[in-house]
Amino acid sequence: MISPTILPQGTSNAIEEGLELMPKFDAFGLLTAVAVDANTNEILMVAHMNAEALKKTMATGEAWYWSRSRSQLWRKGETSGQIQTIQEIRVDCDQDCLLLLVNVGGDGGCCHTGRRQCFYRRVDGIDENGTIRLAFV
Amino acid sequence: MISPTILPQGTSNAIEEGLELMPKFDAFGLLTAVAVDANTNEILMVAHMNAEALKKTMATGEAWYWSRSRSQLWRKGETSGQIQTIQEIRVDCDQDCLLLLVNVGGDGGCCHTGRRQCFYRRVDGIDENGTIRLAFV
Repeated sequence: MISPTILPQGTSNAIEEGLELMPKFDAFGLLTAVAVDANTNEILMVAHMNAEALKKTMATGEAWYWSRSRSQLWRKGETSGQIQTIQEIRVDCDQDCLLLLVNVGGDGGCCHTGRRQCFYRRVDGIDENGTIRLAFV
Repeated sequence: MISPTILPQGTSNAIEEGLELMPKFDAFGLLTAVAVDANTNEILMVAHMNAEALKKTMATGEAWYWSRSRSQLWRKGETSGQIQTIQEIRVDCDQDCLLLLVNVGGDGGCCHTGRRQCFYRRVDGIDENGTIRLAFV
């Protein structure tokens, strides 16, 4: 496969209506990436990709991210077996966010806490001290 | 309603397993916020919230964001009528991302291009120049 070229951003019209990927990286060189289970549509996790992670993802068909906490490329599932095989990649209007439709390998999980997905708590209210309380979903 | 207090981040255990919101803002003071249609589970858009946007969202029950392009607070739908009424807010493991389950007002749309949601293109392949090609979903 030809290695992809990361195009610079063009006009608003090219970005929003065009058929060339011209990603809008943030000041840290990152895109937001939302991983969704391709079968259930469940949102699994939100992470980030730099240009290199995007190229690796395109080349391998598996999700690679940039770990902000570890400052390194991160092949999702390399140690856990929870490899995310890409079924489809979507991009949003201003091209600063990708949606990854994935099949999850290993035990089908995603979250480093051992849960299937990362959004296991919801906001439950504000207590008398002003603290925003959570509850498990 | 008591105005919420934005707690500083605590231990890893408090962040991941605790029942107090202690959001992890990025270097720009922002969280990622994914808005999802509460009825269909469709992912509508991905935007950002600063502490003020989070407080406004909690106080009003409607989604407020921080517009990075305009550098201002943004009451979603103020001009378009596409108000996002919050049904539930979820937070991820490391508390740097919120999931908003919303009902959309007005014509039910969300994207500034006039579409119902922002992820209307998918990656379709790489052409002979290395350009990553998109196709409309």
